[in-house]
Amino acid sequence: MKVIVIGGAGTVGKAIVEELGRRHDIVTVGKSSGQLQADITDYGQVQALFKRAGKADAVVVAAGIMALEPLAGMTPERFRVGLNSKLMGQVHVALAAQHALNDGGSITLTSGIDVYHPINHATNAVTSNSAVEGFVRGAAIELARGIRINAVAPGLLTESKEAYGHLFPGFETVAASRVALAYARSVEGAQTGQTYKIW
Amino acid sequence: MKVIVIGGAGTVGKAIVEELGRRHDIVTVGKSSGQLQADITDYGQVQALFKRAGKADAVVVAAGIMALEPLAGMTPERFRVGLNSKLMGQVHVALAAQHALNDGGSITLTSGIDVYHPINHATNAVTSNSAVEGFVRGAAIELARGIRINAVAPGLLTESKEAYGHLFPGFETVAASRVALAYARSVEGAQTGQTYKIW
Repeated sequence: MKVIVIGGAGTVGKAIVEELGRRHDIVTVGKSSGQLQADITDYGQVQALFKRAGKADAVVVAAGIMALEPLAGMTPERFRVGLNSKLMGQVHVALAAQHALNDGGSITLTSGIDVYHPINHATNAVTSNSAVEGFVRGAAIELARGIRINAVAPGLLTESKEAYGHLFPGFETVAASRVALAYARSVEGAQTGQTYKIW
Repeated sequence: MKVIVIGGAGTVGKAIVEELGRRHDIVTVGKSSGQLQADITDYGQVQALFKRAGKADAVVVAAGIMALEPLAGMTPERFRVGLNSKLMGQVHVALAAQHALNDGGSITLTSGIDVYHPINHATNAVTSNSAVEGFVRGAAIELARGIRINAVAPGLLTESKEAYGHLFPGFETVAASRVALAYARSVEGAQTGQTYKIW
């Protein structure tokens, strides 16, 4: 299969490329890194990306930022950070991919453990990631040509424990290589509308 | 208690006003109807609303539109209809209410049955409503001064069966008066971070 991995330079992205690269042709995409460049918050760039990448069988997104800030000081403008990036960035990819992928292709998006286990200062993340999972459930029954869509909700990465561990008190960590398996399960499996929770 | 009901002129809103009005002072709010007017997609109008309404113990929102359209023809612009109205309209209310309500107050938002039982052409709705429920889970652990937040996910209303029943094949209906009880459970109860599923 030809698999487009958006966010391929991140911690999860690199593990996805390593896992899927064993069996498939990978096209890595980043805002400023990778084989192709695209800012997924810009729908025009996403459409151009699929044209440049050519026909593919799967697209995987492991990209998007959110505003990890206290709710008490949250403004609508700051709240839109996650909606514009983690949510609409991935929605842009799915809206374009539904027309660009080969028949029987797959779309795999990324949410997060906070959907199920909220942490402090993460309301914007929980909202954005819950929306991503809702999009996947809604889109799964609408997609044509046998195209499937799933999400992966990763826990706190072992590789990110030093940087983000203080935000996740008492959480066990999960190796990026284990999270990457869930993306393979989505790309190579047969399910649709699922969220694979890996923690 | 003094309860602000936003969307009080709608089918669910009227039932909420009837149920809560038996025991509480109600301030009804609509975009163009009600005792006070506010367009909740405009954060400035939401902030002004709380100033005009004065100190209150609870706010309930039963308002917001979404784009019920096929995913195949969905554009990012149309997808933002639900995000700007059903999601951000309610987020605006919650962001302002956390500072405006009395200690121990409550915020009750509205999602929908589609979060759990997606229907065709509802990807924008499932996404927006899932985001609302995520917001509630995330905000519940961040709110200060004993302020609580819950959501109500209504099923297909008996009163709306003629207008929308064709979109919900085989779904049982629920009377608006029964849905209204869930808002009372949120306002008068003690739980937070919940979604009351009424169908």
